[in-house]
Amino acid sequence: MEKERIDDLGIDNLKIIQNKDYFCFGIDSVLLANFVVSNNNRNVIVDLCSGSGVIPVIISAKKKYSKIFGVELQDEMYDLLKRNISLNSLEDKIIPIHDDIKSIEKIRKKVIEVTGNGAIDIIVCNPPYKKTKTGISNPNNVKYIARHEIMCNLEDVFKTASLLLNNKGKLYIVHKPERLVDLLEIARRYKLEAKRLKLVQPNLELKPSIVLIEYVKNGGNEIIVEKPIIEYTESGEYTKEIYDIYGM
Amino acid sequence: MEKERIDDLGIDNLKIIQNKDYFCFGIDSVLLANFVVSNNNRNVIVDLCSGSGVIPVIISAKKKYSKIFGVELQDEMYDLLKRNISLNSLEDKIIPIHDDIKSIEKIRKKVIEVTGNGAIDIIVCNPPYKKTKTGISNPNNVKYIARHEIMCNLEDVFKTASLLLNNKGKLYIVHKPERLVDLLEIARRYKLEAKRLKLVQPNLELKPSIVLIEYVKNGGNEIIVEKPIIEYTESGEYTKEIYDIYGM
Repeated sequence: MEKERIDDLGIDNLKIIQNKDYFCFGIDSVLLANFVVSNNNRNVIVDLCSGSGVIPVIISAKKKYSKIFGVELQDEMYDLLKRNISLNSLEDKIIPIHDDIKSIEKIRKKVIEVTGNGAIDIIVCNPPYKKTKTGISNPNNVKYIARHEIMCNLEDVFKTASLLLNNKGKLYIVHKPERLVDLLEIARRYKLEAKRLKLVQPNLELKPSIVLIEYVKNGGNEIIVEKPIIEYTESGEYTKEIYDIYGM
Repeated sequence: MEKERIDDLGIDNLKIIQNKDYFCFGIDSVLLANFVVSNNNRNVIVDLCSGSGVIPVIISAKKKYSKIFGVELQDEMYDLLKRNISLNSLEDKIIPIHDDIKSIEKIRKKVIEVTGNGAIDIIVCNPPYKKTKTGISNPNNVKYIARHEIMCNLEDVFKTASLLLNNKGKLYIVHKPERLVDLLEIARRYKLEAKRLKLVQPNLELKPSIVLIEYVKNGGNEIIVEKPIIEYTESGEYTKEIYDIYGM
């Protein structure tokens, strides 16, 4: 299609089809996929708000796991998700689920169907960041829905993750630092305790623009705040850390 | 006394008497005093867990305000607080209160006695950081009480601050990043919304060891996470930012 493009992820020859009319993935998704700790090849992973599938595709190449489920509601994005699974020949590893993240029993049923049980070790989510404003012009637009809390808000993510995860299972989220209090406080209401937090600064002079958080279901109440990721050097180049994450 | 020493704060010739058997102030108190925003010379400020009074003494030199109350429970530390007020000729500006921070009505009564009303614009607190462990050898030791949540815990600080502060009044706290979830979540229970947060890293390679938070009573639910303070350069010198804070 005219507005589509295929991007090389720069990781193990993986490629992602995107459509510039929809939501295109950014560095936040790449950093989130990299932030996930999954060292067991029996781990079952679910990616909520999966979009075109960039997070499952990167995790498939970089982490140990058994299956990754990608949950996406919007028809146009779900279509891209399916095509990206095929493009990278990952049909055996990534299972697309065309549903709302609030359809908890349907997601669980699909996981049972594929794995034989409903055990989920890890949930990953790059949710819409922006609060819904009244008086908007395009509330049904694909890109608008991907970016705004229309079909799912933070509380929906925590509720679904809490109900689906195993005891001591992990949730990984990327979001804007402005929502930090909500990110920690609402999660705690759902027994998801933030255990590791990493901020991302555009450079040494600017405040963080991204936050990555690892939660543990029924975890204890202390957290490790790691040193921040810095994206660019003083001269405007990617830092070594970012080059390493992109595998360049 | 033998174990006492007088430290020059490096700010406007201010001096602080400390006793090495008790709790001696650290960079966390200096950074907290510096983090406070008080631009109105009618502001009434209360410092909870005031110790030897380093925070009121620094604020007296660096910020606009009308009166600062320093609340300290322990006899030995209260004695140092009174003597530090005299040493710096601040009797008209800093009023010591010898009481538990949980004695909310007594603190309010003292503020009314001095100011004519109970309005409090700003509360500052460098509380004990460590959780109380069972089986400790010196639970009544002055230094131990200053460092551990024996006589006051985080919830006590939020409860007192919430009850004493004006609507939209501000609370400033310094603490360990490990307690970040408690620092944001427990505060919200008491209508204290974290609005500004600053982490302090020993250097660029190490994770943050200190967190500074500004809360607003009945504030909105978004927060600004500022760029971190870095204490030392690669070569082990103080950074320019730290030199500036110390006024050197």
